[in-house]
Amino acid sequence: MRILGIDPGYATVGFGLIEAEQGKVCMRTYGTITTPAGQPLSRRLYQLGTDMEKLITQLKPSVISIEELFFNTNITTGIAVAHGRGVILYVAERCGIPLYEYTPSQVKLAVTGYGKAQKRQVMDMTRRLLKLNAVPRPDDAADALGLALCHARSFTSQLPQIGNVRETI
Amino acid sequence: MRILGIDPGYATVGFGLIEAEQGKVCMRTYGTITTPAGQPLSRRLYQLGTDMEKLITQLKPSVISIEELFFNTNITTGIAVAHGRGVILYVAERCGIPLYEYTPSQVKLAVTGYGKAQKRQVMDMTRRLLKLNAVPRPDDAADALGLALCHARSFTSQLPQIGNVRETI
Repeated sequence: MRILGIDPGYATVGFGLIEAEQGKVCMRTYGTITTPAGQPLSRRLYQLGTDMEKLITQLKPSVISIEELFFNTNITTGIAVAHGRGVILYVAERCGIPLYEYTPSQVKLAVTGYGKAQKRQVMDMTRRLLKLNAVPRPDDAADALGLALCHARSFTSQLPQIGNVRETI
Repeated sequence: MRILGIDPGYATVGFGLIEAEQGKVCMRTYGTITTPAGQPLSRRLYQLGTDMEKLITQLKPSVISIEELFFNTNITTGIAVAHGRGVILYVAERCGIPLYEYTPSQVKLAVTGYGKAQKRQVMDMTRRLLKLNAVPRPDDAADALGLALCHARSFTSQLPQIGNVRETI
């Protein structure tokens, strides 16, 4: 199963592709899609959608694992991120790729075994689980790999609490 | 100039097309795009994007006038609406249609002359300005016609306070 993790946004979208078979996981690629600052939001969303479609065509994921959106203190940024996430969901659906979404807590639990783990711990466990020499950069890409791992482990784990996979609603 | 007003959303999107020439405005059509409840958000967004593209192809607007998004008390709904609005902006950009956005206050000011007018007053003025027998239904469609009127009047009015047109950022 080729799992494409996506850390959604409108300025920078992290992605990370892993291959998961019979409990083993292997990193294939990771990176970011960025859109040019100073452009109108609509232009950036168009760029994002176009690049996301190219990425899906190129990487041929079996599923997409995307972070569920929560609103933090910066509502203005949150609105723009939700715009970008909408475009990502639209493109994924158009490409016919099944979507799964996970909360940050679900990712932490699946990757480190502790739902309140620090961001740094999640990144380090991501590195170790994927047998990488260093934590992937930038953080958006590392987060995306964490999301992909979360899906892999949620599907293969025997632990019921991390089998709580929900289709995007 | 063919102005397509859009009241954004993910469950129901209002639209209204008017023709504005030399200070005169004329209603061409209005209605709603709806997406099926109970479906995953990604499926609804795909439906919305597909229908929006068909609408633009069919109506051939010169510009789109869309409501700026503000967060009200229901953040969960607001997030979903922002997802839908992202898809609408993406599709408009892909179709090459210039986009303008207006706040509810700008619409009220442009349509009624008073930035704090009641919703009902805006709807009634929309009806009168477009010489309609009744206020268009549903409200989403009436709101969309109000947005189209706002753009028409902002572009033709001599009043500087309603010439405050901003491109979507």
